[in-house]
Amino acid sequence: MTSPYDTDLGKTPANYQPLTPLVFLERAANTFPDHPAIIHGKKRYSYAEFYDRSRRLASALAALGIGKNDTVSVMLANSPAMLEAHYGVPMTGAVLHAINTRLDPPVIAFMLDHADNKVIIVDAEFAPVVKEALAKARVRPLVINYRDLECGVDVMRLGKLDYEELLASGDPDYAWEMPGNEWSAISLNYTSGTTGSPKGVVYHHRGATLMCYANTIATNMGPHPVYLWTLPMFHCNGWCFPWSLSVVAGTHVCLRSVRAKPIYDAIADDRVTHLSGAPFVMSALLNAAENERRSFHHRVAFSHAAAPPPEAVLERMDAAGFELTHL
Amino acid sequence: MTSPYDTDLGKTPANYQPLTPLVFLERAANTFPDHPAIIHGKKRYSYAEFYDRSRRLASALAALGIGKNDTVSVMLANSPAMLEAHYGVPMTGAVLHAINTRLDPPVIAFMLDHADNKVIIVDAEFAPVVKEALAKARVRPLVINYRDLECGVDVMRLGKLDYEELLASGDPDYAWEMPGNEWSAISLNYTSGTTGSPKGVVYHHRGATLMCYANTIATNMGPHPVYLWTLPMFHCNGWCFPWSLSVVAGTHVCLRSVRAKPIYDAIADDRVTHLSGAPFVMSALLNAAENERRSFHHRVAFSHAAAPPPEAVLERMDAAGFELTHL
Repeated sequence: MTSPYDTDLGKTPANYQPLTPLVFLERAANTFPDHPAIIHGKKRYSYAEFYDRSRRLASALAALGIGKNDTVSVMLANSPAMLEAHYGVPMTGAVLHAINTRLDPPVIAFMLDHADNKVIIVDAEFAPVVKEALAKARVRPLVINYRDLECGVDVMRLGKLDYEELLASGDPDYAWEMPGNEWSAISLNYTSGTTGSPKGVVYHHRGATLMCYANTIATNMGPHPVYLWTLPMFHCNGWCFPWSLSVVAGTHVCLRSVRAKPIYDAIADDRVTHLSGAPFVMSALLNAAENERRSFHHRVAFSHAAAPPPEAVLERMDAAGFELTHL
Repeated sequence: MTSPYDTDLGKTPANYQPLTPLVFLERAANTFPDHPAIIHGKKRYSYAEFYDRSRRLASALAALGIGKNDTVSVMLANSPAMLEAHYGVPMTGAVLHAINTRLDPPVIAFMLDHADNKVIIVDAEFAPVVKEALAKARVRPLVINYRDLECGVDVMRLGKLDYEELLASGDPDYAWEMPGNEWSAISLNYTSGTTGSPKGVVYHHRGATLMCYANTIATNMGPHPVYLWTLPMFHCNGWCFPWSLSVVAGTHVCLRSVRAKPIYDAIADDRVTHLSGAPFVMSALLNAAENERRSFHHRVAFSHAAAPPPEAVLERMDAAGFELTHL
C-alpha cells in the first residue's frame, strides 16, 4: 500500500510563502501603524511612515531600472536612510551592500567593481571618500546623496539625486514583490580583506528571517523593545537587527557615533531596553565623565560578541544597570 | 555582464539544514541538561532525561520496523509519554497522529484505517475505547500500553508491549536522522468530522518549526518559562507548544484533567508562567471553591483562542493575576 501522505509532500510547494524579513515590516505597519519605529534626534517616524518611506525608496529605485540581483551600495551612518535601505532595496529584488564607513577609497573601489554596483547612496559626511573611490572604480553607479539634516550633516553633495527628493517622487503604495525564492540574495557584506582582497558574503532572505527569530528570542525582546544603534548597521547588517525589530514592532534609536553622552541620554530619555556592540562600547559607558552620565532605573540588555571583556568590566556593567548576554 | 551572485543562489542548496523542531530538544539537552523539562506529579525529568527517553522511544520504534511516513497513533492524556511521542516518533521519520481522547470507537476506527496506522500507544485509561475501535478497524497496528503509574492509571492493558519496558530496551544514544526535507510530514491531525468523515491535516517539519518561533515570541516566553498543560496535546499538537518549549528550555507541567485545584496548585507550587486553553479553563479558575484556590504573587500569561469570553470574565481573570492574550 502507498503512504497515506500526499506523495508531493516533501517537495517545496509551488505556491509556498517564502521566508523574508520584509513581511515583518508590512505586518508591523498594519498592526501598529502609530507605534514609533525610528527615533533620530528630534525626528520620529511611526511604523506607518517607516513602511511608507521604504516603499517610496523601492518604487523610486525600480523607476531607475533597479531590479533582481542588482547591487545597491550604501555608505551611510546609523540613520533612518540606512534602516529604509534594509527594506526598500530588497523590495525591488535588489541586493543591499552596506559599506564599512571606515574603509579607504581603494578598498571601496574594489568592492564596488566586484559587486557590479548599480546605485550608491552616500551620506554627505562620507562623500569625499566615495568621490575618491568612484574615481578609481570601473563601475559608474548612479549616486544618491543623503543629507542627514537632523544632525546637520551636509558636507558635500555627490551626483545629482537627493535622497529626500527621490523619496518624495516615490510611491508609498508601491506593490513590492515577494522574493520568488527564499534563497534569493538580500544583502552582500565583505570581509575586511586581512588575507587578500575582501571576499563577498551573500545573505539570503531565509537566513535573515531565521536570524530575526533567533535575535528576538536570544535577547528576550518581548513586545515593543527600544533598541539603541551602538552597533554599526554596516557590520553584518547590524547582526540583522534592522529587520529583527519589525518582528516585535520595536523602536530603533539611531546614533551616528558611539559616545557616552548620547548613549546615556537615549537610555534615560527614550527608555532604551536593548543595545549591542563591541566591548569598547562598555568602556565608553564605564569611563564616561560625570557630566556625560545619566541615571536610569530600568535594566538594559546589552548583547556583545567577539572576545568577552574581563570579569571586572562585566561586574561594573552589571552594577551600572546592564544585563549582559554574550552572543 | 552576468550577476555577481552565484547563479545557484535561489535554489535550495543540496546540503541545507532542514527546519525541524527536533533540533530544539537536542540543543536544550546539550545546553541545559539539568534544567527540569517535565514535571508530572512527583516525577521530574531533566532535559537530558527527556532527550534520552525520546531517543529510546525512537530507537525502539525503529527496531519494530517503523520508519519514513509510517503513522504512529497515540491515545494519551497530557503525560510525559505524550511529550516524548512528539519527538521520538518523528525522529524515526514517522508521523505522529494524536487522537482526541473524547472520540468514540467508530470515529477512531475510521481514522486508524485512513491513516494506515502501524503502531498505537494507548494510555490505560482509554484502553477500553481503543479496544472497541480496533475491533472495528481493518488495520492491525502493534499496540503499546502506557500505564501512568504516577497518577495510578492502570485500568486495562491492551496488547503485549509495555511503554516503559520498550523504553528500557531502547538506545539513549540513538542517532536519529534529520528529515531529508523540511516539507516532510511530522504529524497528522483530524478535523472533528462535523460535515462528513474527519479530514486529515498534515503538519510538516518546517511549519511546526515556524510555529515554535511564533509561539515563543507571541506569548513573550523569555528563557525557561514554566508551561502548564491545560490545553490538550491531541488538539493541533497542543498548538505546537510541545515543541516550542524546547526553544527556550522551558518546563512542561503535565495535567491529566482540567480541574481548578491542580491548576492553582501548579501555579503556586511550580511557579507556572504560561498556560493556554479554551475559555472554559477561565470559568473553572474563576468559579473554583475557596478550598481549591491558592494565592500566588506572579503574573501568569494565559493564551486563549476561539470566541473571546465576555469583558467581565476578562476583567476578573486580570484581577486574579492572569495576563490574557487572544491568539
